[in-house]
Amino acid sequence: MSDLFFERVAFIGIGHIGSSLARVVLRDKLAGRITACANRAETLETVKRLKLADSVTTDPAAAVKDADLVVLATPLSAYGAVAQAIAPALRPGAILTDVGSVKSLVLREVKPLLPPEIHLVPGHPVAGTENSGPESGFPEVFRGRWCILTPVPGGDAAALDKVTRLWQAAEMEVVTMDAEHHDTVLAITSHLPHLIAYTIVGTATDLEETLKSEVIKFSASGFRDFTRIAASDPVMWRDIFLNNREAVLAVLQRFNEDLTALQRAIRWGEGDKLQALFTRTRAIRRSIIEAKQA
Amino acid sequence: MSDLFFERVAFIGIGHIGSSLARVVLRDKLAGRITACANRAETLETVKRLKLADSVTTDPAAAVKDADLVVLATPLSAYGAVAQAIAPALRPGAILTDVGSVKSLVLREVKPLLPPEIHLVPGHPVAGTENSGPESGFPEVFRGRWCILTPVPGGDAAALDKVTRLWQAAEMEVVTMDAEHHDTVLAITSHLPHLIAYTIVGTATDLEETLKSEVIKFSASGFRDFTRIAASDPVMWRDIFLNNREAVLAVLQRFNEDLTALQRAIRWGEGDKLQALFTRTRAIRRSIIEAKQA
Repeated sequence: MSDLFFERVAFIGIGHIGSSLARVVLRDKLAGRITACANRAETLETVKRLKLADSVTTDPAAAVKDADLVVLATPLSAYGAVAQAIAPALRPGAILTDVGSVKSLVLREVKPLLPPEIHLVPGHPVAGTENSGPESGFPEVFRGRWCILTPVPGGDAAALDKVTRLWQAAEMEVVTMDAEHHDTVLAITSHLPHLIAYTIVGTATDLEETLKSEVIKFSASGFRDFTRIAASDPVMWRDIFLNNREAVLAVLQRFNEDLTALQRAIRWGEGDKLQALFTRTRAIRRSIIEAKQA
Repeated sequence: MSDLFFERVAFIGIGHIGSSLARVVLRDKLAGRITACANRAETLETVKRLKLADSVTTDPAAAVKDADLVVLATPLSAYGAVAQAIAPALRPGAILTDVGSVKSLVLREVKPLLPPEIHLVPGHPVAGTENSGPESGFPEVFRGRWCILTPVPGGDAAALDKVTRLWQAAEMEVVTMDAEHHDTVLAITSHLPHLIAYTIVGTATDLEETLKSEVIKFSASGFRDFTRIAASDPVMWRDIFLNNREAVLAVLQRFNEDLTALQRAIRWGEGDKLQALFTRTRAIRRSIIEAKQA
């Protein structure tokens, strides 16, 4: 990996994932300089205190000046505005990558704004905890997890290779796929589970106080598992649902049909149907254990 | 605890929870003899191999003969038949307790069949893993968790005290509440989360093979958390849904309304509504962490 080196890396947005990657870059000495850009002065103070960057700024255009690698790590709703701001300031030949959870968006909102000599490599490290902010990051968060890159057709092979090796340095397994396909797969594995968890925890939040305190008390019986993912960053998740709307609504429709069928089986006492489903779902757990993702 | 002792404990059903309690009884020498009763010869072979009981039988009436403590630990659907079988054979003054996840059922299907000199103490140790069978039990499964007892109005105080101390020996925190209330609280904290998890894993199970293998591959992004609870015992959970039908359908109705509202907010791009909900749900996670149930 000794030939993996960037003169200057700019992080636009430096929360949980951005700061974790900055820590990898620092740990492995992968950059000459790091610049961090964030909206909020408080975030940049934290970045300075943690010594995650050599310089900080609230101006994305200033941040990307002279950078040979730009990592876009803001919430998805900022992508368009950031792309507009940085496009004229990007150094020719620079690599622009991102860490967002919806990949067709990058093609829609970022790519059209870029000059042709910029190498766009959209990416999604499928990792992270429910915590947010630069103080919550740590370099091992990526270890053994998947990073999905969705290369632009006809894109620069050397740029793709460098971004691949960056995530490999973070100990991730890197795979590539089409952006639309990524968004369909993640709608099932990540976006729907989060939506359901937010809903069930929201339902509990609306209970009267006495009952709510008992739900918290006895949460270890199943509910607790949902609260962890329903504690994820609200803005990040708002943006995911708004920007992967079609795929999320499609899989939600299937989920709703299946839930209605189960509801009906309970109402009519159809024990055989329930048992058959509950037996089938056990197999998926075994597959996940076999795939070493448990 | 030195005065907590039973001459003969009979386990009717000895799976994950029954065998875990048997291990506590053995560890702490709380019984002179243990008898285990199960339907399947294979289960009894395992019990013998693991030395969890002094004697085994497939006949519930034979199992409870001379027992001063009977622990009913079968799936809920067997409760009525077991109660009918053991009622004439129970020793006068014996304590009958259970470990089931629905407590109004015990009052409906077991209590009416018992002679008046039997002390019924319905119970629910809120503990366990997703594994099943006597080989999956271990005495520490109960440690630090809640055990809910739903004492029968006018029931024997000494019997309640003995069962309380039994679960305290298993390192549980024991609380008492009304059976109906138990069933409402658990419908929210346990039954609905399991129903949702079974549904979402079922939805994934029905995907075409290529997509399904990718869902397994990228399951760490949220989906995985659901598969653990959707790997729970199919018969046990079939019986829970069938026997706590009203409470489960009531809370499912609220969940459905909330999910529909969220679905609509996504479809119409109402980001403020999404963000407001996702911010509220974070608070519940903090409460669970503060309650040391995380």
